[in-house]
Amino acid sequence: MGRVTCQLSLSLDGFGAAPGQGPDHPLGVGGERLHRWAFGPPPPDPADAAIARDLLSRDGAYVMGRRMFGGGEGPWDRSWRGWWGEDTPFPGPVFVLTHHPREPLVTGGGTTFTFVTGGIHEALGAAREAAGDRDVAVAGGMSTARQFLRANLLDEVFLHLVPVLLGRGERLFEGRFDARLEPVEVIPSPAATHIRLRVRRDGDRPDRA
Amino acid sequence: MGRVTCQLSLSLDGFGAAPGQGPDHPLGVGGERLHRWAFGPPPPDPADAAIARDLLSRDGAYVMGRRMFGGGEGPWDRSWRGWWGEDTPFPGPVFVLTHHPREPLVTGGGTTFTFVTGGIHEALGAAREAAGDRDVAVAGGMSTARQFLRANLLDEVFLHLVPVLLGRGERLFEGRFDARLEPVEVIPSPAATHIRLRVRRDGDRPDRA
Repeated sequence: MGRVTCQLSLSLDGFGAAPGQGPDHPLGVGGERLHRWAFGPPPPDPADAAIARDLLSRDGAYVMGRRMFGGGEGPWDRSWRGWWGEDTPFPGPVFVLTHHPREPLVTGGGTTFTFVTGGIHEALGAAREAAGDRDVAVAGGMSTARQFLRANLLDEVFLHLVPVLLGRGERLFEGRFDARLEPVEVIPSPAATHIRLRVRRDGDRPDRA
Repeated sequence: MGRVTCQLSLSLDGFGAAPGQGPDHPLGVGGERLHRWAFGPPPPDPADAAIARDLLSRDGAYVMGRRMFGGGEGPWDRSWRGWWGEDTPFPGPVFVLTHHPREPLVTGGGTTFTFVTGGIHEALGAAREAAGDRDVAVAGGMSTARQFLRANLLDEVFLHLVPVLLGRGERLFEGRFDARLEPVEVIPSPAATHIRLRVRRDGDRPDRA
C-alpha cells in the first residue's frame, strides 16, 4: 500500500492561497507566486524542476476539496467542468470532496474526477483502491489538507516554503493539530525551501536522518 | 557599519511564542520547544550548536521590546531587573524599547540595559553607535521584530523553523509587509530548518546564491 502525502506551497507567512480565488486566479490574486518555483516564470532551477516532476510521477490518485476542483456551492451545475480544463496536470484519478452527488466526469485528456459525498475517510478509501501500490496525494486546498492532517491520515507533508509575504489569504496551519512532524529532507533553492516532513505515529522511533 | 539582523525561532505554524508568557515561561507555556535546537534537551546537533554560538558572537548590540526584557506595563518598578537574571546571554549592550523612562541597569554579569523611549529609530541609532562595526541584533519579541521589518530597517532575517505546531501564540508574520526577502542560506537539521534571508533594497540586484 502506498503512502498518503500532501505537498503544498506556502508563503513565508504561512498562506497557501491569496484572497480572490476564481477561474483566473486559482490561488487567489497574487497567489500564483506560490507556484513559480515549479512552473516559472522565470524558468525553474533544475533542483526545483526535478522536485516538480517527481511529485506527479509518484502519485497514483488524488483527493481534493470542491473549491480546488472549481469553486461553487450547493447542487452541481452539470455543465460546469471545473477549473482544470480538459488537459489536467493529474496523471491519475481525482476524488473530489463534496456534499452534493454527481456522476464522475472524464476530461478530454482522460482525467476522471469522481465526486465523493461521504467525507475524507471515504474519499481516501476510494483513492487508495485506485492508487494500488502508489501514493495517494491530498492535493488541497488548505481546508482539505487541514482535515487530513487533523484526522492523522497523512504519512508525509512536503512543504515548499516560498520567500514571499502574502499578508492575507488562507493558512494551512490554523488552529490546533496533534500531528508530530519530523523533517526528513530539506532541499534549498532560491525560489523555495522544500521541507519534507514525516508524520510520526505512536510507536514510531525517532528518525534523525 | 554592521548590519541589522533579526534571528527568531518559529514553529512550523508561524508562532514565535506560545500563550502564557511569564517569568517561568519567557516564550509561553510550551514555547521553550522553540529553543531546543539551540539549548536542548537533548544536546543540540553540532550544526545547530555552531549556529547558536555564531549568532551571539557576531552581534555588537541588541534591541528588544519591553515585554522581552521582562513583561509589565506602565511606569517602572525600579526594583524589577527583568527576566534575564544577572548573567544574561547577551555579550553586548541591550537597548529596551519602552514608553517609560528609566536609568540604565547594569547586571552583576556586566550587561547594560538602556531604556529608550523614542521608538525604534532612536533605539537603532543608539545600538548602532554602541555596536561600532559589528551587527545590531533585533532580539525580539514578535511585535518588535514586526516593527523593524515593517519599517524596512533589517538587512537580514534568520529564521529557525522548528517542526512543532503550537496552535496558538504570537506570530511573527501578521498583517502586511512590503519587505522583499531572498533566501541566501539554508541549513537543515532534525531540530530546525535554518533559513537565512536577505532583505532586498530597491536597487539591489537579485542574488541567486
